[in-house]
Amino acid sequence: MEVNIGLIGFGTIGTGVVKLLKENSGLIEKKTGVKLVLKRIADKDITSNRGVDIEPGVLTTDTGKIFSDPEIKIVIELIGGEEPARSFIIKALSSGKHVVTANKLVLAKYGGELHKLARENNVRLEYEASVAGGIPFINALKEGFVANKITRITGIINGTTNYILTKMEEGLSFEQALDEAKLKGFAEADPGFDIDGIDALQKLVIISHLAFGSKILMEEIYTEGISKITLEDINCARKFGYNIKLLAVAVNLNGELELRVHPALLPLKHPLASVRNENNAIYIEGDAFGAAMFYGKGAGQLPTASSVVSDAVRIAASLEGSHQAPGLFWGDRKLKPTGESVSRYYLRFPVIDQPGIVGKIGAILGKHGISITSIIASLAGNQGNEGNVEAVTHLVKEKNILASLQEVEKLSITRGPSVLIKIEE
Amino acid sequence: MEVNIGLIGFGTIGTGVVKLLKENSGLIEKKTGVKLVLKRIADKDITSNRGVDIEPGVLTTDTGKIFSDPEIKIVIELIGGEEPARSFIIKALSSGKHVVTANKLVLAKYGGELHKLARENNVRLEYEASVAGGIPFINALKEGFVANKITRITGIINGTTNYILTKMEEGLSFEQALDEAKLKGFAEADPGFDIDGIDALQKLVIISHLAFGSKILMEEIYTEGISKITLEDINCARKFGYNIKLLAVAVNLNGELELRVHPALLPLKHPLASVRNENNAIYIEGDAFGAAMFYGKGAGQLPTASSVVSDAVRIAASLEGSHQAPGLFWGDRKLKPTGESVSRYYLRFPVIDQPGIVGKIGAILGKHGISITSIIASLAGNQGNEGNVEAVTHLVKEKNILASLQEVEKLSITRGPSVLIKIEE
Repeated sequence: MEVNIGLIGFGTIGTGVVKLLKENSGLIEKKTGVKLVLKRIADKDITSNRGVDIEPGVLTTDTGKIFSDPEIKIVIELIGGEEPARSFIIKALSSGKHVVTANKLVLAKYGGELHKLARENNVRLEYEASVAGGIPFINALKEGFVANKITRITGIINGTTNYILTKMEEGLSFEQALDEAKLKGFAEADPGFDIDGIDALQKLVIISHLAFGSKILMEEIYTEGISKITLEDINCARKFGYNIKLLAVAVNLNGELELRVHPALLPLKHPLASVRNENNAIYIEGDAFGAAMFYGKGAGQLPTASSVVSDAVRIAASLEGSHQAPGLFWGDRKLKPTGESVSRYYLRFPVIDQPGIVGKIGAILGKHGISITSIIASLAGNQGNEGNVEAVTHLVKEKNILASLQEVEKLSITRGPSVLIKIEE
Repeated sequence: MEVNIGLIGFGTIGTGVVKLLKENSGLIEKKTGVKLVLKRIADKDITSNRGVDIEPGVLTTDTGKIFSDPEIKIVIELIGGEEPARSFIIKALSSGKHVVTANKLVLAKYGGELHKLARENNVRLEYEASVAGGIPFINALKEGFVANKITRITGIINGTTNYILTKMEEGLSFEQALDEAKLKGFAEADPGFDIDGIDALQKLVIISHLAFGSKILMEEIYTEGISKITLEDINCARKFGYNIKLLAVAVNLNGELELRVHPALLPLKHPLASVRNENNAIYIEGDAFGAAMFYGKGAGQLPTASSVVSDAVRIAASLEGSHQAPGLFWGDRKLKPTGESVSRYYLRFPVIDQPGIVGKIGAILGKHGISITSIIASLAGNQGNEGNVEAVTHLVKEKNILASLQEVEKLSITRGPSVLIKIEE
């Protein structure tokens, strides 16, 4: 089934959506039976080269061509900011079109009325990409955890500040870390939106709306950014066994909500404490599922586009009126023979310790094309001259390592079967 | 909208579903507009007390009463094992009923034909609870990551073996760890299904069907359990910087699939290496979203029931023919005033170092009802008598800590504003 889409906003994320549909729309159709067709792309700038080929007639500066086209069922809004984005979403919903957006500000401020408008027009409003792009958290909250009373959500939901705090853990000052974040494209020229916690605040409002069903105003939430955090704070925290993270926190204690965005000390053993660099993670607790964590990129052109397109597919699939995707087996079936599998390995040979053992074993491994990153020979405590030779290999084919083991086990110096365990990285 | 459900299998998970619906069906209705009604529960044993009240006439030993009831739209199958579970699922689908199941074996072996049958009858077959119960991974794979070519999945998807390996890391032998797992209810009397990797294998087949669309036979997958892993292996691995985990691995390299279940060494810094005890986690990589991880309980009565009920709600919501849930604001709106927020805190007071400082500051904190878990006074290197007093508090109300700070800052010994950072745990 073909479903036509109109895209408003041909910036970084919009270009990512175009790229992703070009690359994977065949795959999406095989999986779901849905073929997404980008019928129109509207932007103020339709001349700049974004590095993707667009068919003639698709680009327009006139959003009206999207709203008035009865063939377009889904509008993807990716211009960001309050206006005209909000008006475009309203126009799309009022025109009976489903809307996919990543617009945090509009959702945080006007989520309630936009949902109402969508309902009145019997269309859907989806926004997986608005929080933690690439990580399917929003729909987990709406669907996967629907049977739960959500009791607590603790999130690292701003990649810029997490990157800066990670670099400060590594010894950079706040200013140096901010400069590096700008250099890497993780921070804007005007970084206040991220640094001051506003981005995390908007996302927390969206999450709270879905988790608790309560109307939350942004100005009601205590919000503190990371600009006051010093290297001394981070080092002192570490001394007591903590990392400092910018957290968005929502606690539902007997129906009373506590919502806040601020830097906080996290015990090093907390699952969120080890979330580094620009990554996002959300730790969520509920009365039935217990606790769960979602971790991933949280931003970037293709991760965010992945979330946007997943919403469009979700909507398109629901239009069919049927309940089933094409079924399970849409893919090729080409299995790699076990012996051809390539891994690094840990090896342990129980041996009778005598001079030249490491050389003998090393020679056999070498003969089978196996190179070693480290090798240790050791006596096994008080068992006389019984010892072990342990080695960690570079990448090697399974059949080669098995052949070498057979050969080593035939040596007179071995005193039992060798141990072989794959290494995953 | 009311949707009637028939439950087949009133064991641990079935009882969890009944409990969860009793507890949260009002909440579910507020969130989604869907009211799930458990019209029939079929089990061989309808006399044992499961600790939940069932209305008269609901319990039956005759599954036919479910299949022949036109009012029942969704059948939840939770008896497990191959037969009669498979026949019940077939009968339900053929009767035009949507099916929710957690049955790994039946899905791994017969997933393809059951999907086909569901499609032919225009009904849905959902099985979020079959892998990593409580963690909404299956629907993330089907929907959230739909726009991606999945390149790699690495999962800790058997809680029993992860619990045993964690206890071995703590120094227990395999047998001791297994005994403790049995004692805690994480391992069955006959633990082979978990220990030998069969449970993980069945789940890997289900995941691979969805991720790659390839028909996979269980006997094609290299499967090795943990019974050969010794304390020595774990200690040796640690020496080289690795933990040992039972992994289910699926790699898609240029369309060639590599699938395997086996114990593996994971570098300690790998996100999966720190997944402890009975918890599950799945690390997934795709061409657009990059990498993401899901973490959670993975098993247990209520986590699994949470996944089962989420599937039933998902189906029920799709029956409505409309596209919208009731909208956003279904919940109460009671915000906790910021000052009433209770946390532990880290405090740092920059001071001019002189005898009695810790006592003075401690006295002020005590006056405001703040108790301290640790306090350190230190000279700040080579700045003469300038130093810091640092403290970590017990739980305290925000307004009390702010009041105490004001008072400390008035002391003549302070040389600048104090630092106050919340601790989350």
